[in-house]
Amino acid sequence: MYEELQSALRQDAADIESALCDWLSPAYSGDTVLAQAMRYAVLGGGKRIRGFLALSFCRLFGGEAKMALPFACAIEMIHAYSLVHDDMPCMDNDDMRRGKASCHRAFGEANALLAGDTLLTQAFEVASLNMDVSEAARVRAVRALAQGAGALGMAGGQYYDLSDTCASYEELYRLQSMKTGALIRTACLLGYYAATDKVDPKDERNIAKYAEGIGFAFQIVDDLLDVRSDAITLGKPIGSDAKNDKKTILSFLSEADAEQLAARCTSEAKAALADYPGAQILCDLADYLLERRF
Amino acid sequence: MYEELQSALRQDAADIESALCDWLSPAYSGDTVLAQAMRYAVLGGGKRIRGFLALSFCRLFGGEAKMALPFACAIEMIHAYSLVHDDMPCMDNDDMRRGKASCHRAFGEANALLAGDTLLTQAFEVASLNMDVSEAARVRAVRALAQGAGALGMAGGQYYDLSDTCASYEELYRLQSMKTGALIRTACLLGYYAATDKVDPKDERNIAKYAEGIGFAFQIVDDLLDVRSDAITLGKPIGSDAKNDKKTILSFLSEADAEQLAARCTSEAKAALADYPGAQILCDLADYLLERRF
Repeated sequence: MYEELQSALRQDAADIESALCDWLSPAYSGDTVLAQAMRYAVLGGGKRIRGFLALSFCRLFGGEAKMALPFACAIEMIHAYSLVHDDMPCMDNDDMRRGKASCHRAFGEANALLAGDTLLTQAFEVASLNMDVSEAARVRAVRALAQGAGALGMAGGQYYDLSDTCASYEELYRLQSMKTGALIRTACLLGYYAATDKVDPKDERNIAKYAEGIGFAFQIVDDLLDVRSDAITLGKPIGSDAKNDKKTILSFLSEADAEQLAARCTSEAKAALADYPGAQILCDLADYLLERRF
Repeated sequence: MYEELQSALRQDAADIESALCDWLSPAYSGDTVLAQAMRYAVLGGGKRIRGFLALSFCRLFGGEAKMALPFACAIEMIHAYSLVHDDMPCMDNDDMRRGKASCHRAFGEANALLAGDTLLTQAFEVASLNMDVSEAARVRAVRALAQGAGALGMAGGQYYDLSDTCASYEELYRLQSMKTGALIRTACLLGYYAATDKVDPKDERNIAKYAEGIGFAFQIVDDLLDVRSDAITLGKPIGSDAKNDKKTILSFLSEADAEQLAARCTSEAKAALADYPGAQILCDLADYLLERRF
């Protein structure tokens, strides 16, 4: 199962990795320890799901993948920056990330802070330099990146996560739709913006629904894996949510109910793309993420 | 002296402050402690020199100031973010900023880290939402902001500053042209981009020369004030460079030679704008910054 999807994931991840190498070369990032820390945080790790979403939505709406490639890189750089800063001692204080030392453990706190800052900054440079799309598309992409990553998106979600005031399932849902969902939605929208300048709010809504569905399912599966998997498979310590006394979906639902909810979110995601020919691979991705063990 | 300039500075600073209030309202930043920290870091302080440069260069090239106002806000947000992160314990570890507690002293490290992140992020959103200029201008602005603030600009300068490896005057010059100069150049360029879509590399070079001149003079005067002023006038502790064992221009030049160098940089800055009618106020600004006591 999923052979076609897995092959596409591998190929896109390789293309994204190669493009990220170019965008993080000395011409753009210098040749300092800071630049090393940036590359360490971004390259050679991660499943590039967000980048894959950008390329896939670009293809879905008739574009060539290369039109969305700089946007995919920008998203991956922002995702990587968020992990670097979230891992820092004043935040989640994690020593390991993707099976290796977290950035501040490898390069020191000051370099990690700066590497996160410069990755975030450079993401916007990369988006602005996407010469395969119109200036209108680049402006839309920059706005979507900023809104997805900012105080009402990913960073705002991290703020709520740190305050850990979630008293209900609804509050946890809001937190996770900001912390994880917002950037996933941005990734999908960026592919759409790369493919067309004829932006239709109805398309944007459907894309947002798909993103919301897979994003929340993704987070639920994350929470389940944290109590079920092992550190080698997962590439990070298991049981860290309980150790950190973090609220997860399992603070409010049984494992069985959480599984059912993830399945329902996945169905809703797929339904949002029902009218788009060529969306099968994105539906497969939704199922694949639901069933994943990593 | 400088009545006209000071009046323009006051008026523009008021306009920028008001626009920043709007851009940092709950609609854009939420109504959390994180949003409070963002506003604390940006509002009610600073001389808005960078924002003034953006508005002034817009006027110089025939634009209305309001066309550059969102860009001016973006620059001030990036400047403020850099101060928040630079003040943090793992960086310069400063307790005071602009006469009040630094952001992490007032809101804690995690909130300060996130507030810096979200200010940086939102700066790009604000630039992308500048509806008074073309999409081409917004793309140019985003690129210039990212390059001015990134690993080869401001953040890269902070990296060199932390490594403190400056063994010569030339190395210190490179550091300061990255750490302070790059964002000043960006501010000037953003005003130009707001005013016109007919971008001429010759104009860009002249603008860069002006920015380089006032930027370096500004930094030299900063170094001189650090040994000469008092904390009340300056709004931050004096003698902090010596205390932190930081290399400054006075590590390589006598006070008299440093003064002469600052004067020469100021002259060069003014010479770069000799061919532009209406540049008097920007020449006055160069002199004013040279003679400042704050």
